[in-house]
Amino acid sequence: MEKNVLSRWEFSTIVNSMKPSAIESILKAIGDPEMISFGGGLPNPESFPVDDVKKVFDELITKSGRQMLQYGATEGLKSLSVAISKRMKQQLSINSDPSEIVQTTGSQEALYLLGKILANPGDYVISEAPTYLGAITAFRASGIRMIGVEMDQYGMKMDALRRTLKKYSHPKFIYVLPNFQNPTGISMNLERRKEFLEIISDEGIIALEDDPYGSLRFSGTQLPALKALDKNNNVIYMGTFSKVLAPGFRLGYTIAPPEIVDKMKLVKQALDLASSTISEYIAEGYLSGGYIDRWIPNVIELYRRKRDLMLKSLEEYLPSDVEFTRPDGGMFIWVTKKGANTDKMLEDAIKKKVLYVVGSEFYPDGDNHESMRINFTYSSDEKIVEGVRRLGKVFEGAGK
Amino acid sequence: MEKNVLSRWEFSTIVNSMKPSAIESILKAIGDPEMISFGGGLPNPESFPVDDVKKVFDELITKSGRQMLQYGATEGLKSLSVAISKRMKQQLSINSDPSEIVQTTGSQEALYLLGKILANPGDYVISEAPTYLGAITAFRASGIRMIGVEMDQYGMKMDALRRTLKKYSHPKFIYVLPNFQNPTGISMNLERRKEFLEIISDEGIIALEDDPYGSLRFSGTQLPALKALDKNNNVIYMGTFSKVLAPGFRLGYTIAPPEIVDKMKLVKQALDLASSTISEYIAEGYLSGGYIDRWIPNVIELYRRKRDLMLKSLEEYLPSDVEFTRPDGGMFIWVTKKGANTDKMLEDAIKKKVLYVVGSEFYPDGDNHESMRINFTYSSDEKIVEGVRRLGKVFEGAGK
Repeated sequence: MEKNVLSRWEFSTIVNSMKPSAIESILKAIGDPEMISFGGGLPNPESFPVDDVKKVFDELITKSGRQMLQYGATEGLKSLSVAISKRMKQQLSINSDPSEIVQTTGSQEALYLLGKILANPGDYVISEAPTYLGAITAFRASGIRMIGVEMDQYGMKMDALRRTLKKYSHPKFIYVLPNFQNPTGISMNLERRKEFLEIISDEGIIALEDDPYGSLRFSGTQLPALKALDKNNNVIYMGTFSKVLAPGFRLGYTIAPPEIVDKMKLVKQALDLASSTISEYIAEGYLSGGYIDRWIPNVIELYRRKRDLMLKSLEEYLPSDVEFTRPDGGMFIWVTKKGANTDKMLEDAIKKKVLYVVGSEFYPDGDNHESMRINFTYSSDEKIVEGVRRLGKVFEGAGK
Repeated sequence: MEKNVLSRWEFSTIVNSMKPSAIESILKAIGDPEMISFGGGLPNPESFPVDDVKKVFDELITKSGRQMLQYGATEGLKSLSVAISKRMKQQLSINSDPSEIVQTTGSQEALYLLGKILANPGDYVISEAPTYLGAITAFRASGIRMIGVEMDQYGMKMDALRRTLKKYSHPKFIYVLPNFQNPTGISMNLERRKEFLEIISDEGIIALEDDPYGSLRFSGTQLPALKALDKNNNVIYMGTFSKVLAPGFRLGYTIAPPEIVDKMKLVKQALDLASSTISEYIAEGYLSGGYIDRWIPNVIELYRRKRDLMLKSLEEYLPSDVEFTRPDGGMFIWVTKKGANTDKMLEDAIKKKVLYVVGSEFYPDGDNHESMRINFTYSSDEKIVEGVRRLGKVFEGAGK
C-alpha cells in the first residue's frame, strides 16, 4: 500500500476550496420514510407529461432513430433552437435568431459556462442576496467572488445595488432571477426591472437573467422578461425544460449575443462535447407538437393548489411572529423569523421529522441565519399539512 | 448602440487562450454532398441498436416513467453503477465497488472533471503523442500544459517516457489510451503495459486510462486493462456507452478511488448537477437485459468489414512510400508519409472532395505534420473505396 499514490494526492486549489452543499446532506436524511422533506427543489413527479413523452419518443425513434442516437452539434439541435426562438417570441416577446441559442446540459451547465467565460478567478459578480445555490456553486467553481445585494418584497433593492456598485464598480456581471426567485419566491416588479436595466446600461454591465420558473405563474399578471425590455443587448437569458417538461432530460438553453455563443460552444466542447441528442429531439417534438401548451396548465393547476395549501397551513400552524413570502409562481416559499437561527433549529427539525434548507446557504457570504427555504411542489397534500404542522412545533421550540 | 457592452466584453484569460479545433472547420465542409469525409469520429448509424433502445425505453417509461424523468443523483443511477461494476469484472477483470463509479455526460465530461480536479493552471500532464484531441481540449480548458511522449507500433515508448520523466518529474497524471488509440489505432502491448505500471508506481504518478473502444476488437487477442493489472490503485479507468450503445445518450463512466469520486461529484454538481436520468435508465436496461452482449457482435462484424475494406483500398491506391497502421479494433487508421505536410495537403484534398484530420491536431505541441487520421466506421463501403482512391491522388499530387 506504500505505493498507493491516490490517497496522498494533492487536489487542485480551486477544488480544495469547494465544499459539498448542505442540500446534499439533507438529501441523505430523506432516506428516513417518516421524514417530510420541504428541502429538495424537485418538481412533483405528477407534473411530468409521461404519456406525451412516450408518444413523442415512439414517433421520433421510428422516424429518426439513427439521427436521434448520433452525436449532435455542440450548440444543440438546430430545429429545437428554431422552436425555442419562436416560443420565446410568442410567450415573452424576446427576439432572437436561432443561432443566438445554445442548448446546455441543464441550465446549470449554462451557469458554469458563463462564469468560466466571463470571469477570471478572483473577479467578482453581483447577485441578489439570497440567491440560487446552484449559481453560487457554479460561479465559485471558477474562483468567482460573489457580492450579494439586499432584496425586499419587490426584488433586488435598486438603492442597495447602486451602493454596491460604488464599492465594486466593475463586476463581471450581475446574476438575477426576476420571476419567483429561488429561494425566496419573490418577483422583481416592473419598476425595478426598468431601473435595473437603466443602471446596467449606464454602468456597462452584463446581466444574466435566469428564468427557470417563468412559465409557472399561478396568480398575478405576467411581467416582461429583462431580455424583452433590454434595448442595449446587455442581457443574457437562460431557460430550461426541467420545470415545464422534466428535469431528467437535463436540457436548458441560453439566448446570448453571437460573441458569447461562440465562447460557450468552445468551452462546452471541452466540457461534454454536446448535450443528449435524445433529450433534444424529444424536447423539439414536445414543443413543435404543441404538447407543451396543452400540458403547462396542468402543472400550474397542481402547483397552485399546493402553494395555496401550504400558505393556508403556514397561517394555521406558524407562530404569528414568523413571516413568509406569498409567491405568484415557482416552487418555493421563504420563511423568516427575526432573531431566529435556522441553522441551529435544523437539528430539532430532523428530530421532528421535517426538513428545510437553511437560509444561510443561499447567501453568498453565508451570514444571514433568520430564514429557511421550503418547497411546496414535491410533497403530497397530506404531507404539506403535516410537515408545516411539525415546522410550527420547531418554531415554537426555538422561541423558548 | 453605444451602450451595447457585450461586443467589447473581455473574456476570461483561459477562454481567450482556447481555439476552435480543426475538426469543427472540417465538419463545415461536410455540408458538400459530393464530399467523402474520413474526418469525423462518428460511429456508423447502422451500429445503433435502435429497436433495442425502443424496446427498453417503452418498458421503462411504462414501469418507471416518473423516476426516469426526475432529477437523478450527481454520481448517476445506482443500479447502473452496479451493472457497470459487474460488467467490468466479467469483461475486464476490473474489481470495483459500485460506489467507486461516477457516471458522466459522455467520457468527455470525465476528462474535464479529472483535469480540473487534479491539476492547477500551469501544471503539466503527460500523454502519448499523438493523443486524443478531446483530451487536449479538456485539459487545456483547465490551463494544463501537455507533454507528449513518442509512440511506436506497440504504443507509448517506455524509454521515451523515462526520459520525459527526468525532465518533467512531477506530472499531475499520465493520460493513456491503451486500446486502438485515437488517433493512431495502435494498442499498447502487454510488456509495455506492465512496464508502464512499474514506472508510475515507482514514481508515484496517477494514470488516466481512457478506453472508449476496448469492446470493439476485430482481431488479435484481448489485452488486460491497465486498471486490471494495477496492484497499487494508481489507475483511474474511463469507459463510455457512446460506441457500444450510441453517442446520443452522452453517457460515460469513471472508476476511481473514493477520494477522487468525492471530488468528481463535487465539481460535477457545479457543472451540470447530474447527467440525463433517461440515458441512465436506458443504459441500465440495455446492460441488465443482456441486449449489449447480443448487439456488440453486430457492431464488431460491421466495423471489421469496413476496416478490412479500407486497408485493402489503402494498399491499392496509396503510393508505396505512404505508411499506415493496421488496427485490431476501434475506429481509426493513422496514415504517414515521411517528409509530407498533411496540413498543406488538406486544401488539395478538399478540392478532390475527401476529408481527413491533419495529424498535427493530435500533438500537444502541434509540430508533427507527416500524418493524418482517417475514420473507417462512418462511411458507406462505396465511399470508403472511392474516398481512399481520391486520397491516393492527393498523395500523388503532394509528391510532385
